[in-house]
Amino acid sequence: MSIPLDDILTRLRGSAVERDARGGHAAAEKTLLREAGLLRLSIPRAFGGDELSWQEIYAVVRKVASVDSALGHVLAFHHLQVATVLIYGNPEQIARLLGHTIEHQCWWGNGMNPRDRRLVAQRNPSGLQLNGVKSFCSGTVGAHLMTLSAVVDAAQRPLLAVVSTTHPGIGIVDDWNPIGQRQTDSNSISFNQVPVAERNVLLWPEQEPTPFHTLRNCLAQLVLTNLYLGIAEGAFAEAKTYAHTQAQPWLASSAEHAVDDLFTQNRFGEMHVHIAGARALAERAAELADRAFARGPALTAAERAEVAVAVAESKVLAHRAGLFVSQELFDVTGARGTKASLGFDRFWRNVRTHTLHDPIDYKLNMLGRWSLKGDLPDPQLYA
Amino acid sequence: MSIPLDDILTRLRGSAVERDARGGHAAAEKTLLREAGLLRLSIPRAFGGDELSWQEIYAVVRKVASVDSALGHVLAFHHLQVATVLIYGNPEQIARLLGHTIEHQCWWGNGMNPRDRRLVAQRNPSGLQLNGVKSFCSGTVGAHLMTLSAVVDAAQRPLLAVVSTTHPGIGIVDDWNPIGQRQTDSNSISFNQVPVAERNVLLWPEQEPTPFHTLRNCLAQLVLTNLYLGIAEGAFAEAKTYAHTQAQPWLASSAEHAVDDLFTQNRFGEMHVHIAGARALAERAAELADRAFARGPALTAAERAEVAVAVAESKVLAHRAGLFVSQELFDVTGARGTKASLGFDRFWRNVRTHTLHDPIDYKLNMLGRWSLKGDLPDPQLYA
Amino acid sequence: MSIPLDDILTRLRGSAVERDARGGHAAAEKTLLREAGLLRLSIPRAFGGDELSWQEIYAVVRKVASVDSALGHVLAFHHLQVATVLIYGNPEQIARLLGHTIEHQCWWGNGMNPRDRRLVAQRNPSGLQLNGVKSFCSGTVGAHLMTLSAVVDAAQRPLLAVVSTTHPGIGIVDDWNPIGQRQTDSNSISFNQVPVAERNVLLWPEQEPTPFHTLRNCLAQLVLTNLYLGIAEGAFAEAKTYAHTQAQPWLASSAEHAVDDLFTQNRFGEMHVHIAGARALAERAAELADRAFARGPALTAAERAEVAVAVAESKVLAHRAGLFVSQELFDVTGARGTKASLGFDRFWRNVRTHTLHDPIDYKLNMLGRWSLKGDLPDPQLYA
Amino acid sequence: MSIPLDDILTRLRGSAVERDARGGHAAAEKTLLREAGLLRLSIPRAFGGDELSWQEIYAVVRKVASVDSALGHVLAFHHLQVATVLIYGNPEQIARLLGHTIEHQCWWGNGMNPRDRRLVAQRNPSGLQLNGVKSFCSGTVGAHLMTLSAVVDAAQRPLLAVVSTTHPGIGIVDDWNPIGQRQTDSNSISFNQVPVAERNVLLWPEQEPTPFHTLRNCLAQLVLTNLYLGIAEGAFAEAKTYAHTQAQPWLASSAEHAVDDLFTQNRFGEMHVHIAGARALAERAAELADRAFARGPALTAAERAEVAVAVAESKVLAHRAGLFVSQELFDVTGARGTKASLGFDRFWRNVRTHTLHDPIDYKLNMLGRWSLKGDLPDPQLYA
Repeated sequence: MSIPLDDILTRLRGSAVERDARGGHAAAEKTLLREAGLLRLSIPRAFGGDELSWQEIYAVVRKVASVDSALGHVLAFHHLQVATVLIYGNPEQIARLLGHTIEHQCWWGNGMNPRDRRLVAQRNPSGLQLNGVKSFCSGTVGAHLMTLSAVVDAAQRPLLAVVSTTHPGIGIVDDWNPIGQRQTDSNSISFNQVPVAERNVLLWPEQEPTPFHTLRNCLAQLVLTNLYLGIAEGAFAEAKTYAHTQAQPWLASSAEHAVDDLFTQNRFGEMHVHIAGARALAERAAELADRAFARGPALTAAERAEVAVAVAESKVLAHRAGLFVSQELFDVTGARGTKASLGFDRFWRNVRTHTLHDPIDYKLNMLGRWSLKGDLPDPQLYA
Repeated sequence: MSIPLDDILTRLRGSAVERDARGGHAAAEKTLLREAGLLRLSIPRAFGGDELSWQEIYAVVRKVASVDSALGHVLAFHHLQVATVLIYGNPEQIARLLGHTIEHQCWWGNGMNPRDRRLVAQRNPSGLQLNGVKSFCSGTVGAHLMTLSAVVDAAQRPLLAVVSTTHPGIGIVDDWNPIGQRQTDSNSISFNQVPVAERNVLLWPEQEPTPFHTLRNCLAQLVLTNLYLGIAEGAFAEAKTYAHTQAQPWLASSAEHAVDDLFTQNRFGEMHVHIAGARALAERAAELADRAFARGPALTAAERAEVAVAVAESKVLAHRAGLFVSQELFDVTGARGTKASLGFDRFWRNVRTHTLHDPIDYKLNMLGRWSLKGDLPDPQLYA
Repeated sequence: MSIPLDDILTRLRGSAVERDARGGHAAAEKTLLREAGLLRLSIPRAFGGDELSWQEIYAVVRKVASVDSALGHVLAFHHLQVATVLIYGNPEQIARLLGHTIEHQCWWGNGMNPRDRRLVAQRNPSGLQLNGVKSFCSGTVGAHLMTLSAVVDAAQRPLLAVVSTTHPGIGIVDDWNPIGQRQTDSNSISFNQVPVAERNVLLWPEQEPTPFHTLRNCLAQLVLTNLYLGIAEGAFAEAKTYAHTQAQPWLASSAEHAVDDLFTQNRFGEMHVHIAGARALAERAAELADRAFARGPALTAAERAEVAVAVAESKVLAHRAGLFVSQELFDVTGARGTKASLGFDRFWRNVRTHTLHDPIDYKLNMLGRWSLKGDLPDPQLYA
Repeated sequence: MSIPLDDILTRLRGSAVERDARGGHAAAEKTLLREAGLLRLSIPRAFGGDELSWQEIYAVVRKVASVDSALGHVLAFHHLQVATVLIYGNPEQIARLLGHTIEHQCWWGNGMNPRDRRLVAQRNPSGLQLNGVKSFCSGTVGAHLMTLSAVVDAAQRPLLAVVSTTHPGIGIVDDWNPIGQRQTDSNSISFNQVPVAERNVLLWPEQEPTPFHTLRNCLAQLVLTNLYLGIAEGAFAEAKTYAHTQAQPWLASSAEHAVDDLFTQNRFGEMHVHIAGARALAERAAELADRAFARGPALTAAERAEVAVAVAESKVLAHRAGLFVSQELFDVTGARGTKASLGFDRFWRNVRTHTLHDPIDYKLNMLGRWSLKGDLPDPQLYA
């Protein structure tokens, strides 16, 4: 990276409270990440990238998320789209699209939301044409390229493709105003007669996705794990700083300093073990993901299932660590930690928003069926 | 009440999201509560009030809090100051101050925060003079009268008194901008040469407070219980409405409607029992409080302790119910419940802010020492 | 009572550890309870009983359960069968059966387990004849009378009746050897050509049970609540005594005595609030049950539902309080509390066994459907 | 191993319920483990051992603990004493004692309990003489050698030494009869004029223990982690088998088989994630322990602290996983899982007993102080 990561984190943290309040698009910060070289991490060295392992990429995502989980999300989803090209693309597509990405320092956006079937692709003599709307297109605002899924005719399975976001038929719908993760640019995107060249189709509806193809879902879910975990780590860090610098022991405490109060110490102990457990699982899952990614198209369904299960385990613990720590943060700051200017509630709002991506009840159900009956996780159900 | 409570609730709920975003003073809503006659509830019939029991008053507070916990707080603290007069005042003070309250439909504010010793009262020939600052004076903005505590000379115990908030030496400090409970008007108040007539002194520093005097703390803590509980009930109600009208069952659910999803149903079951347990304890505590209040100065320390313990029990369960339900609310709405326009995060922000009033660890410690060793709760420690 | 309850409790507690190890039938203790007059509590004064309210009866059950939850169960189920006669019986049956109960100081056993359909009643000219087996007939060993349900022909609903346990065709199956609640005499009972006089039939299969009839289920479920709660109270009491008399503060503690250790105190605080919440709901449910019981056959389905919901709420909290306190007990005693001679594990084994009576997941589901959709609890599903 | 581990596990599991009921010494099973070669695992190849890594040894311990956590404890503590020789011993001691261990297939017992200062060593011309009693000497019954700590004069720090358990002055006190971990042979041992040769002294009181020396505590604590985790895994395995073979879906369930009940599946999911989190931390801690062990006397205090923290994290999660799964086991079996003959309660009794070794509150406090203030774990406080 041309700018040290710590400097980037300091800058993001400095404006995070203000930008959370404002919402909308973080243009300057996305430029910063781009200029710092953070868009290269997942791109193979052959095309000029850093070719980091997923373990390393997730570690960076977690650090960014610890100060700004919206930008952590945007950065991680950029790399998820790069991974999509690496997984679904043929050699020509990979070389062309990722070479282009390096050359122009492109940001990638995500239009793959499978639950929304309103975007339709029609075949015509020169390729395909897109019409309709796609919701939750994280990172697409300000991006240069995007992946997307679209419905073709009556096919059950969607077409997957890449388009340039600069086409005039692509419009941003102003519908992203949530209580948390406010700068993820997860707007809906409208498509009006947007052409797709055949060479940019990654998967046709008639192609059965392989286990390797659906490894993308695992990588996506593991992004969520690391965002939740980054939020927990960020909240912990703020709690620690506040405890040392501003917190007062309670009237009834025998401690002179807040950091010496026994109950405060034990709350830090609890936060610490929540994070430690989630982190160990996240790291284990990333290691498995790296191994599976390296297997390429040879990846079997059983091998993929091991990864999906490890990811789901980590996601459950990170989900809980995130909610726990971001709420507990206040117990160790006390009442004065609720000043709006501190912005400490953003951790909870961010993690509460993002942990609703897909329901934890069904994640646990998948893990239950796997551990009890050996049922493989269903890639169609966010696993 | 001259306006049905349900109408008031509907009006408060209609603007609650917008006012939460705005913060500051809810002038129109305080006028509404006043005109509806809600300031009379605790005042004896002898002076023109409704003389409701505390059980009844807390029930009203809880309902108001379920749609707007900031206004619930302001209303409850008004009645806490009326109670302060009834508890500490002599017959002349009670008749005069409460008669005045009825006649002018006065709002009362609270300046009793015992942890802040910056407000000083100096004796002079004509009475006392106040100088300094008092923090967290909930409800004082827009009030006509306020209670307060002030330090006199080197005395350990403060002076308690009543002043009119209209004196020009009283100024509102613009320092109340928290993440939740944003319209409680809990600003600091500055006092510059504010006179206090001796007839408005409720307790002199040299007077030892009786168990009955310190019953005020129990009534104050029970306000918190009922606010937390009201927030839980309000969040539950929103979750229920949303589940019926907007929620979708998850992809993997076999239910056609969200309300028929088994996991969703069980989450409602969990929320329901959290609330039921807290409510049963809150009602029991209010019943004990009414009985103790009726005992008047004859109240013994042991009798008071029973009330304080019952209140603390209810506060712990309401604290947890409030945090649990306001977080769980989102699990039953799913991701679309995080739209900022719904304002569903206000429940968590409100209860998270208010549950930091005094630390739950020390509340549990008090209950532990009581149940293990028989130690009476210390009235000086918010018990 | 002819023997003070405290004396009975002391005697039961004195032998509880030894009898738990032994299992089987507690003949001497059942004689003690009988001679103490505890079998009369629920019987109307008109027939020589004490006619206590259900609130009072459950309070006694809880106390017995705090020292011996197996005998608490047997005692409570005796009164449940008396209630069955009062609910289902006609005036003649009530007068005859309860008069007989008083005259002979009878113990009643329970053969109503609705899930076991192996006991069959065949009509014949002189009445009915029973053949088959019934499981979980708590308290039947050593009892004089028992209620039972039996399948008649192809009828969906069972016949309810009373028989004398002394008939030679009635045999006790030696199949009750569980990990907890070891002396509840919940053996299976075999029936071989056992006659049932028509005058002892409480309900024929063709009679639709009324809401009042199925109030019996609520009373039965509320027995469980109070047993769980009694176990929690008993474990708490042992923990407290041990903490004062034998526990040592941990090496790293700054306390001189275990009862002054802050963490120990907070664990007592937690146990205390768990119990307090469950108890408040248990008392509320018993009050509603008394009111519904007094309504008699006029009880509506909606009124019954209110009781069933209140009972279920209390059962969930008591279930959790029981498991929590009986496990936590050891955290406050430390390692030396695991000596087998202390028998402290019996609380957990008892409550763990009994909380499996019917699954808490489905109890929560019922509460969820009630609170979310207004569905009335189904009396056929233990509600 | 000369007997496959799976065969050993099957044999231990077959008698575990019966031996748990009986308590006392498991002579035949200790012979089995010995003949299977399991006493060699930790001994360097140079002396004829297997020289497995700690990661591998703990994996074996966990498997044994999953079917019999008492024997898992005895086996693990044997290897802990071997480690004690490797850590504290000089080359001659290591070669002699471990060579002897291999030659005679010795079991080692543990007499190091630091909290009990009743065992006294007096210097005399020929070496030292031991008199007094030592409690909790796990595994010493039936062992050939034991380590021990003894008080010398007024020295604060104890002497550490090795003695043969066959000396006639060594007596076994019949005082180990706990509710769980019943066959760990953790009796007190009495010493009457037992000589200790100087060449068998591992550490003199005047020698300051090094960070490497106190790594022994980390290895000991990590034994506990793996025992708790093994218990959780064993309880999970029993639950799974029972769910497939014997459990019935509840009346109100729409599932035909218990394993298809949604709530049952989610409970398995919860158990699975509890175990997964604890296991990931346990494996990470073992990896760090192996690395630190390999560092030998060069190990720094800071490096040791990293290990101690990782071990403590894993211990907290394993503690909770053990208690959770062993209680939850019953929720998935239902009431019939409480048959004494199944012995399912032994998991809870074992883990409840063993998790009291040192209090979790102080473990969390250590983790809190480390993560908040950077305080190194104190080796004297079981860290």
